[in-house]
Amino acid sequence: MSNPAPADDRRYVLSLGTPDRTGIVARISTFLAEVGGSIVEAAYHADPDSGWFFTRQAVRASSVSLSLGELRERFAEVAAELGPETEWTLADSGERKRVVLLVSKEAHCLHDLLGRAAGGELPAEICAVIGNHPDLADVTRAHGIDFHYVSFPKDPAERGPAFEQVRKLVDAHDPHAVVLARFMQVLPEELCAHWAGRAINIHHSFLPSFVGARPYHQAFARGVKLIGATCHYVTAELDAGPIIEQDVIRVDHSYEVRDMVRQGRDIEKLVLSRGLRWHLEDRILVHGRKTVVFS
Amino acid sequence: MSNPAPADDRRYVLSLGTPDRTGIVARISTFLAEVGGSIVEAAYHADPDSGWFFTRQAVRASSVSLSLGELRERFAEVAAELGPETEWTLADSGERKRVVLLVSKEAHCLHDLLGRAAGGELPAEICAVIGNHPDLADVTRAHGIDFHYVSFPKDPAERGPAFEQVRKLVDAHDPHAVVLARFMQVLPEELCAHWAGRAINIHHSFLPSFVGARPYHQAFARGVKLIGATCHYVTAELDAGPIIEQDVIRVDHSYEVRDMVRQGRDIEKLVLSRGLRWHLEDRILVHGRKTVVFS
Amino acid sequence: MSNPAPADDRRYVLSLGTPDRTGIVARISTFLAEVGGSIVEAAYHADPDSGWFFTRQAVRASSVSLSLGELRERFAEVAAELGPETEWTLADSGERKRVVLLVSKEAHCLHDLLGRAAGGELPAEICAVIGNHPDLADVTRAHGIDFHYVSFPKDPAERGPAFEQVRKLVDAHDPHAVVLARFMQVLPEELCAHWAGRAINIHHSFLPSFVGARPYHQAFARGVKLIGATCHYVTAELDAGPIIEQDVIRVDHSYEVRDMVRQGRDIEKLVLSRGLRWHLEDRILVHGRKTVVFS
Amino acid sequence: MSNPAPADDRRYVLSLGTPDRTGIVARISTFLAEVGGSIVEAAYHADPDSGWFFTRQAVRASSVSLSLGELRERFAEVAAELGPETEWTLADSGERKRVVLLVSKEAHCLHDLLGRAAGGELPAEICAVIGNHPDLADVTRAHGIDFHYVSFPKDPAERGPAFEQVRKLVDAHDPHAVVLARFMQVLPEELCAHWAGRAINIHHSFLPSFVGARPYHQAFARGVKLIGATCHYVTAELDAGPIIEQDVIRVDHSYEVRDMVRQGRDIEKLVLSRGLRWHLEDRILVHGRKTVVFS
Repeated sequence: MSNPAPADDRRYVLSLGTPDRTGIVARISTFLAEVGGSIVEAAYHADPDSGWFFTRQAVRASSVSLSLGELRERFAEVAAELGPETEWTLADSGERKRVVLLVSKEAHCLHDLLGRAAGGELPAEICAVIGNHPDLADVTRAHGIDFHYVSFPKDPAERGPAFEQVRKLVDAHDPHAVVLARFMQVLPEELCAHWAGRAINIHHSFLPSFVGARPYHQAFARGVKLIGATCHYVTAELDAGPIIEQDVIRVDHSYEVRDMVRQGRDIEKLVLSRGLRWHLEDRILVHGRKTVVFS
Repeated sequence: MSNPAPADDRRYVLSLGTPDRTGIVARISTFLAEVGGSIVEAAYHADPDSGWFFTRQAVRASSVSLSLGELRERFAEVAAELGPETEWTLADSGERKRVVLLVSKEAHCLHDLLGRAAGGELPAEICAVIGNHPDLADVTRAHGIDFHYVSFPKDPAERGPAFEQVRKLVDAHDPHAVVLARFMQVLPEELCAHWAGRAINIHHSFLPSFVGARPYHQAFARGVKLIGATCHYVTAELDAGPIIEQDVIRVDHSYEVRDMVRQGRDIEKLVLSRGLRWHLEDRILVHGRKTVVFS
Repeated sequence: MSNPAPADDRRYVLSLGTPDRTGIVARISTFLAEVGGSIVEAAYHADPDSGWFFTRQAVRASSVSLSLGELRERFAEVAAELGPETEWTLADSGERKRVVLLVSKEAHCLHDLLGRAAGGELPAEICAVIGNHPDLADVTRAHGIDFHYVSFPKDPAERGPAFEQVRKLVDAHDPHAVVLARFMQVLPEELCAHWAGRAINIHHSFLPSFVGARPYHQAFARGVKLIGATCHYVTAELDAGPIIEQDVIRVDHSYEVRDMVRQGRDIEKLVLSRGLRWHLEDRILVHGRKTVVFS
Repeated sequence: MSNPAPADDRRYVLSLGTPDRTGIVARISTFLAEVGGSIVEAAYHADPDSGWFFTRQAVRASSVSLSLGELRERFAEVAAELGPETEWTLADSGERKRVVLLVSKEAHCLHDLLGRAAGGELPAEICAVIGNHPDLADVTRAHGIDFHYVSFPKDPAERGPAFEQVRKLVDAHDPHAVVLARFMQVLPEELCAHWAGRAINIHHSFLPSFVGARPYHQAFARGVKLIGATCHYVTAELDAGPIIEQDVIRVDHSYEVRDMVRQGRDIEKLVLSRGLRWHLEDRILVHGRKTVVFS
């Protein structure tokens, strides 16, 4: 667990997954020691179910004599030794990540993310906000951020061009994260594939309960005693992508649906902002349908 | 929220549900004032969804000049005024409630309830424990409580006589609560009906997620970040009865199924013991598929 | 628990505290029934420690034939019957409450409250924001709200005129709540008295732990495993006023002070916004050093 | 986070703290790789405040060709390289740890720990229970465990011989943990020193709030909205030892002290059992007044 790095605390962050075998930690840590890397965070996970090994290591950038490019080149050799299935990234916490938000009419997640970005809590620049309604244009622009309104036809079968327009607006920023901040539109399969591993959604229920539309109405009808929210990567199967973070809040018989909606907002904001920060800090490794989160 | 009444703090507890209209509170509270009732707890709920009104009121028994029988007789007239749909009970907290537990091999809920009963936390006597395995006989008998072992055939189609034997053993105590403390057997429909409103189950997931068998395995496979437990009244539809209480606990990628099983036990114990206590203190009103819990 | 009333759901809210005796509920509810009041929320608390009784009742305004003024006049007679110590208010949820915020440099509570007010979550108008630093002027004005900068001298002994200026700016709005949203200045005793029952502070620790300055540094030094926040009414004794709400969040050995500061913000926002909403909805009754919160 | 190891899953667990410098992870992991160690858990913490580095690594015992004795001998050389301040242990999860419990009259923590030990949740044998009251003898003996009653004089100044007797009864088992399971006696300074790092207490408040006697009465008087419990190592300064674990539970104005006592028990049991398990699994490293918990 750690804060976005201040300027004097730049880090190189290595994330890696590979089939488990003896000596991986030794190989990686020896490499990091050889380049002078002073480790400030290290986390490991050996998954007995899949037989894979995952790690995230952060070294103080100033302790390493190589450039990021050189470091990547050198580490590629280590990764090659670990085998062809090895997946890894080497990120520079000094690089400001780019984020694009997709919104609809609900303002609370947008307000929350804009406030956190302004306050320096998110290690990212919000490049643009795209809405299928114009309602949230003003608050976005008050933060000096571009807002694009894309009109969506009522008939789902005719939404292809609108989604195409969204794709272009998003891709213009080549973002590290595309956040569906209560966007309320189901992404077409090709966009799910195109933004795989970068598109993050907030669903307003404790998945897998209450998939799909109007989850608070479903929760009310079932009489549950807690409501929740789930932040997950978007995949083609609705609300079934790898879960990043979840949380719940207590309700009781006195809560009408509108009370659940209000209470739920607080959880949605928290869960989405946590999940997005972990994504931007390279703390999440996806394997199959599940996530390893080195929070 | 209140403790089991000590001997000098006996209460009469009125629970009532009726279609909502103006003047119900006035009618009931005027009645209670007329009989001298000193109210120590009062809770109300007007449900806009169903149009019903629910209340629970506890008065100090020593403040009322009438016997419980007389009080019931007198209140029946008030209830009649409120209309034929009115449902009500008038309980005496000085009466020791009777509880029968159904168990299998898992010991944690049994240990927990026996410990709470011994410590005076549950306003009830545990009359008997019935197991479809003999494993928990010793710990039960160490508390001076009868244990009955009922052998269940492997073939579900042949379990009728075993359930009949359970029914007889349970009904011999005319219990206020029949607790399925990780019993692991699906009650036949006629037993669900026979013990309606008295049979309480603990399901080891956050319902409606992971209905049915092996919920921790289902949770592991889905990669959820919280696991839960649900205490509910038993109805003929599996794991779909009115929910009394739920809670969750955090897990992460490092939790194997056996870790979830261990962590989950703590939540199962808490949720079941809370739900059972509320039931025994007449804090739960069931309406349709939902509960009003005046905790 | 209930939402701010929509226009078609206006309520009259009666809050009352009085020494306990038999018949209070009957007297009040009979009165409400006589004026046709349809009760949508009712809560009671008989406090054995102080011997006082507290209640909050909300009736649908449209069900009552009298004006608010007439209702108050009529109820004053009932209150008089209940004795001279009786304290009560009768509020109209249709009246938009006025709030003034005092801030310093920290933006998160301000962002959060502005967002909630804009989203209709707070049943109030934020009339003005006053800062002892100019930093938060822009975000305030972007919401169309007046910002006043009042310069505070370094020497605490010389701050009298600055506080006097703050007092005038606040009192110009005759606000229902004066919120110290991370104001970081200790109010002088006469202001505490002047705004008694209306001044609400958020303290960034789980009181009574870590009173005074730099509570996260104190928490870090002590090695606690949870950090918290406390919303309380301001009184002359520092951080010792009646507690309205508290909550905590988990930390561990990996949290530096700056991580606690960031995590703590999420709890501060939640706790302050809950406490303020309850205050504005007349859900809080103060008795001595403690609160009764009918949430 | 991991379960007590089953017989076929024995582990060697290395815990180490040392002043931080580059290459420590490489040195340790290279050593483990050289002896064939298959790492199943690894955790690291570099503490910028103290400048120390902490790690815990668990390797599958069956993957290592050396005996535990040989492994310790070989690792001593590595530790020597890391410098004279290095503190380390190498434990065998196959060794059953020994625990002695000190109790008074309150039964809930004892019930809970006996139940967990019986259910295989605690990787330990409870060797003996010592009480300064005889009340809990029967439940202890029903589990086949020795109970020793030691009478404590009323005058604290005369309790020396009683503590001496407790010391002898405890030390006869050379236990890995001496648990004050609501013992309600302040250990004399020499016993704190004698059992340093092994004596674990459960305090029934969220420390540092409400140090000393009757914390629930203190919490009630202050009107807090959450009550808590704290598991910590015992040191000479009352309730001020390194904190292992804490948790809280919500209360409100309706809770009398006796309700807090009952609710608090659930938290005390959870917090103590978690802390004790982590201690027995060698997951806790103490540095100065704080703990690193690799849970």
